Amino acid sequence: MKRAIILLSIVLSVLMMGSAFAQSHPRLVLTADGVSAIKSNLEKLPLLNQSLQDAIKEVDMDMANGIEVPIPKDMAGGYTHERHKKNYLILQKAGVIFQITGDQKYAAFIRDMLMQYAKLYPTLPPHPEKRSYARGKLFWQSLNDANWLVYMSQAYDCIYDWLKPAEKKVLEQDLFRPYADYLSVESPQFFNRIHNHSTWGIAAVGMIGLVMNDKELIDRALYGLKDDLIDKDQKDNDGGLIKLPEQPGAGFFIQLDFLFSPDGYYTEGPYYQRYALYPFMLFAESLENCRPDLKIFDYRDHILSKSLFTILNLTDSEGLFFPINDSQKGMSYLSRELVSAVDIIYHFCGKDPTLLAIAKMQNSVMLDNTGFSVAMGLSENREQPFIKKSVELSDGPNGDQGGVGVIRAGKSTDELCLVMKYTAQGMGHGHFDKLSFSMYDKGKEVIQDYGAARFVNIDQKYGGAYLPENNTWAKQSVAHNTITINGTSHFEGDFETGNKYHSNPYFFNATDKEMQIMSAKDTNAYPGITMHRTMAVIEDKAFEKPLVVDIFRVQSQQQNQYDLPYYFMGQVMGTDFEYSVPSTLSPFGKNFGYQHLWKTGEGKSQNSNAKLNWFSNERFYTLTTVVSPEDELVFAQLGASDPLFNLRRDQSFIIRKTKEKSPIYISVIETNGHYDPVSEISANSFSNITDVEILLNNEKYTVVTFAHRSGKKWALAISNEDAGATMNHHLQAEGKNFDWIGPFKLTKYD
Amino acid sequence: MKRAIILLSIVLSVLMMGSAFAQSHPRLVLTADGVSAIKSNLEKLPLLNQSLQDAIKEVDMDMANGIEVPIPKDMAGGYTHERHKKNYLILQKAGVIFQITGDQKYAAFIRDMLMQYAKLYPTLPPHPEKRSYARGKLFWQSLNDANWLVYMSQAYDCIYDWLKPAEKKVLEQDLFRPYADYLSVESPQFFNRIHNHSTWGIAAVGMIGLVMNDKELIDRALYGLKDDLIDKDQKDNDGGLIKLPEQPGAGFFIQLDFLFSPDGYYTEGPYYQRYALYPFMLFAESLENCRPDLKIFDYRDHILSKSLFTILNLTDSEGLFFPINDSQKGMSYLSRELVSAVDIIYHFCGKDPTLLAIAKMQNSVMLDNTGFSVAMGLSENREQPFIKKSVELSDGPNGDQGGVGVIRAGKSTDELCLVMKYTAQGMGHGHFDKLSFSMYDKGKEVIQDYGAARFVNIDQKYGGAYLPENNTWAKQSVAHNTITINGTSHFEGDFETGNKYHSNPYFFNATDKEMQIMSAKDTNAYPGITMHRTMAVIEDKAFEKPLVVDIFRVQSQQQNQYDLPYYFMGQVMGTDFEYSVPSTLSPFGKNFGYQHLWKTGEGKSQNSNAKLNWFSNERFYTLTTVVSPEDELVFAQLGASDPLFNLRRDQSFIIRKTKEKSPIYISVIETNGHYDPVSEISANSFSNITDVEILLNNEKYTVVTFAHRSGKKWALAISNEDAGATMNHHLQAEGKNFDWIGPFKLTKYD
Repeated sequence: MKRAIILLSIVLSVLMMGSAFAQSHPRLVLTADGVSAIKSNLEKLPLLNQSLQDAIKEVDMDMANGIEVPIPKDMAGGYTHERHKKNYLILQKAGVIFQITGDQKYAAFIRDMLMQYAKLYPTLPPHPEKRSYARGKLFWQSLNDANWLVYMSQAYDCIYDWLKPAEKKVLEQDLFRPYADYLSVESPQFFNRIHNHSTWGIAAVGMIGLVMNDKELIDRALYGLKDDLIDKDQKDNDGGLIKLPEQPGAGFFIQLDFLFSPDGYYTEGPYYQRYALYPFMLFAESLENCRPDLKIFDYRDHILSKSLFTILNLTDSEGLFFPINDSQKGMSYLSRELVSAVDIIYHFCGKDPTLLAIAKMQNSVMLDNTGFSVAMGLSENREQPFIKKSVELSDGPNGDQGGVGVIRAGKSTDELCLVMKYTAQGMGHGHFDKLSFSMYDKGKEVIQDYGAARFVNIDQKYGGAYLPENNTWAKQSVAHNTITINGTSHFEGDFETGNKYHSNPYFFNATDKEMQIMSAKDTNAYPGITMHRTMAVIEDKAFEKPLVVDIFRVQSQQQNQYDLPYYFMGQVMGTDFEYSVPSTLSPFGKNFGYQHLWKTGEGKSQNSNAKLNWFSNERFYTLTTVVSPEDELVFAQLGASDPLFNLRRDQSFIIRKTKEKSPIYISVIETNGHYDPVSEISANSFSNITDVEILLNNEKYTVVTFAHRSGKKWALAISNEDAGATMNHHLQAEGKNFDWIGPFKLTKYD
Repeated sequence: MKRAIILLSIVLSVLMMGSAFAQSHPRLVLTADGVSAIKSNLEKLPLLNQSLQDAIKEVDMDMANGIEVPIPKDMAGGYTHERHKKNYLILQKAGVIFQITGDQKYAAFIRDMLMQYAKLYPTLPPHPEKRSYARGKLFWQSLNDANWLVYMSQAYDCIYDWLKPAEKKVLEQDLFRPYADYLSVESPQFFNRIHNHSTWGIAAVGMIGLVMNDKELIDRALYGLKDDLIDKDQKDNDGGLIKLPEQPGAGFFIQLDFLFSPDGYYTEGPYYQRYALYPFMLFAESLENCRPDLKIFDYRDHILSKSLFTILNLTDSEGLFFPINDSQKGMSYLSRELVSAVDIIYHFCGKDPTLLAIAKMQNSVMLDNTGFSVAMGLSENREQPFIKKSVELSDGPNGDQGGVGVIRAGKSTDELCLVMKYTAQGMGHGHFDKLSFSMYDKGKEVIQDYGAARFVNIDQKYGGAYLPENNTWAKQSVAHNTITINGTSHFEGDFETGNKYHSNPYFFNATDKEMQIMSAKDTNAYPGITMHRTMAVIEDKAFEKPLVVDIFRVQSQQQNQYDLPYYFMGQVMGTDFEYSVPSTLSPFGKNFGYQHLWKTGEGKSQNSNAKLNWFSNERFYTLTTVVSPEDELVFAQLGASDPLFNLRRDQSFIIRKTKEKSPIYISVIETNGHYDPVSEISANSFSNITDVEILLNNEKYTVVTFAHRSGKKWALAISNEDAGATMNHHLQAEGKNFDWIGPFKLTKYD
């Protein structure tokens, strides 16, 4: 009998170890099993060991300076901001080091610093900088306070069992619980949104809840605040609505439901997806460790895993994210957020060997169970290449709010990549750039998207916050490679209007290497006007590199001014039309971004095609576009109305059409030849394209032809109203018969 | 007796093999011994084998297209130009391949193409493009015709013994001899100069002479034309004088005497040095092989070897040449000309193992005896690091026409490099940039020199020739980081005046890592005005990176307008003075380069220091400069008066002083902190320098002080009139005593 009771108690305690509240600490990101596995394999796993040694070096250097917990004062980039930020990054690492090495000096360092925070925190009013809609206490915005808690929860978890009960009591009563309350019940406008800010807040509150075994905090994190009293028109300081119309709730599950499309596309774009992934993934890992009953990684058909694969595909061939919406260029899948996401999804979601290829480039792993798995996989040489494919990604919680198309052509080491955007607005960080695109060649921008006007965490530049020019320039339509009508941005630049609508995918087909093609329409950016853009990438041995064909149709009932810019990167080599340059420069317009462009040249073409040839990164590019003699061919350079030199000095070639109600823009973009400044040999530096022509353009069909100077000719026919895959089409144009099935047809005449 | 005669004849023939005219072919660059050594070691020498396989691949691809010898028509970059250029590059390689592989198809290809040239050449008038002062026949300028012959001589040499006598007779009578005559006796203005053009002409004529055993041609090459009837005012199309005043002769020895300083500095600068090195080195190798009696590599205290080491030192940490004078950026020691120079000097001049480190980066060797030696050295792992040092290089045949100072500080992998120019004019390719400088950090330009306004061999840009903007912009003083007075370039931009003068080194000291310093004066750029610039690089643990101190004194009898621009690279982060930006842009002036600058901003400082902080390549830089409230602080951007977008859109910060007769500019340039767009963490992004002050400035002494914001302070004292190393100085300034020996003294107060 006694024996049976003992047995039962063993069984029970084994069972309990699987539930949240019986586990010992660490339990959040590290677990006891994980720690012991790491300890006993460290010597065998150079990547893990290297990550540990790097962490020790960094933490030791910082510890040598002693503890600094300054009274909050500065904006991002300033001293107190960067110090508190460094504190949480260091303590999180110190916690892991303590667990792995057992060296108590790290635990003591964490305790001592947290104790200082426990003394300081109760004395703090909201941060003196009043710029944010949700001011933090340690930082100018609650977002950063949430960052702090996501990391500090992990540090606290690592020393939890080492602390004396009285110490825990002080920390929880004076610091963590009030901290979590401030981020949630006291900041509902921050906590109860569907937005990356809330994801951080939720993870912060949930993770400290799991460490403290505080069911109330955990539930708050999972299901949101019941009552938030948020006004439906309330906005954040970037102009984004706090609550979405008809928002069905809040909390972690709602974030997972609403921030991702079924394909895993995150509506704010990859830059913010990267930022949000860290709390998503860390909180999910914590839940999987403490609350496996929730099966969080299975949720919504494995949405977390899909989200990782999606963001990995939204990168150029160097791994940099496409700068969709507000996005600082240079951010890549080497970021710490992606290191954790790759490790976590690898560990919990089937150990996909292609993720190891990314981890190898990251050359860093998490110091936890998941990083251990990755290091193990790499040490066993299990990695397989991560091949990025052409892909269309839907936007919106139900995948019915437009999307992004990515076409990749050529070898992966020398890839041409085309990104076209026909998503929803992307919330407060969205740009007014319906049907815009960008083009990359071998990982370099050829036709660029500006990205955000911001220098994140650089104090000199407006405290690291969004610059005024982000609104006046970067978000405006003319800052993008899409059409602006009558000098007014899409939706007149109004966020709330834009937020109601999305563009519509028309077709996407990447099955045939000879031609990959995508097409989308927008009917809302300008009331009563339909914009329809089709972009194709053609590979043909007549051309050294894949060819881009851009067909942009507009249908309107009245005559308008249409501007289509191409933000080409590099130096103008030549044009085949005459242009003049002014002796003084004036802004190209007064508002909607035009005030930031100097008009640096203007010409017209007497031919039906105009060519711009430029040079960049040792290659030549040529845009050949169909023009009429009235079209104004404008060169512009960024930098007007920029009193603090906040903008880059990028340039643009703008095709302005004013004489038509429903114009069509047809352009062919070639990548031709190369030039090497060491050998000084140039090859194939001129365009090979001739005779770009509109054979037919009406409501039902558009047929475009173009030729290689050798005489070879192509016709691309598009069905404008029916994208059905099995639909039969027949038409005659200039004596030629075109018969085909499906929405498009490329015909080649040799 | 008979035996003695046989012995004698053996001895004689052995002796004869050492002289020019008894050798068999190849004799020029390849030799029979070399060929057999290469053949028997090919498998062991991967680098040599790779170079051979690369050559075979390239030649085979070209041979597959058949022979094309078009009638000359185009400028550089155009079809006929590039075709004839490719022909000589291919045939030279085909010759080598024939020698090594013995495959006669290569010999036949060379013969057949040369035969076509032998048919075409006698029919040719001078090239239809009339732009050059010395038109060629195959190319628009004789320079390119000479290139052709330098390469074709090698091809001909390789098949010489394989050809039938009748074939040789046709080639020599119809092609080579008239070709050499056209380049020499028929083009004295091209052949008899002291100039890289003539070096090419001389090598071409001399090398074909050596192959053909034509003593007249060889002598012409070595000693020039006796009578040339060149007018003393005759100029080339870049404005350079054909004959130097008091030119003592012509030919190869005169080139060696006059184009290099005793240090091996080439007066036109490293870009042209690289270009000239190929004919210098190839002809020297040919002479060494055929005329070892000349001991050409010993000539002028091993000037050819010195010249190589000098140009290798005139590179940034990536191996790119400093763009001194007319120089297209991007050219580096990876160029084919430097491959041959490194191989040749290695082989003939003592097998210096540091050259193997350069050869390894070049990853290519000559397919001849010299490349064999290098490949052998590398296969034996004999290479040693090539360490670039701080160095002062004299200019002028006697080393008394100014010079160039290069200071390098920090680790070689993270080097700060300062280049200051106080040379002679540099002939026709010289810029009006006395006492200018440029600054590099980790191989990236921080304060740049524009280089040339030219796109070499890019047909779209003026046929690849110098652009008009090279004269109107790139050569002008305001295009450089030096002072322009009263809006007029040095020497009023007049080449002939500039060509008469040079600046003067004052002192150069790089022995103390704590401070390396250089100083130079110019008294001729503006009559009656002395300019004196001193630049120091200070390493101190108070600063993360070496600090640059720039002291630029001017002495004049009257009030002038002084402009000192800094062509900083990157984005403005902030200033500590107020400035305004105009709503329309106008050029900053009318001529001397000012017409190409848009004035984009202007401010004044109420403090005695003005700061400009900028960001580039993940680092921050700050210029702190001493100003008075009257000084105009101007931002400018390049691109005005540029009707064909020929210029880059670079920017400048210009300090204009108008209220003083003899102003002094004092600036401190910091490299501070870093920012990584992946981690988004910025560190040490603000200046640490405060209180830059002029303690004393008179004819005899200048004393400058500056401080770190921690309070540490430095004083730099300079003796302005006596640079004697053992001279005692004593002075008092603001109550402080300064006593020191030598031209300068850095004092630190902790």
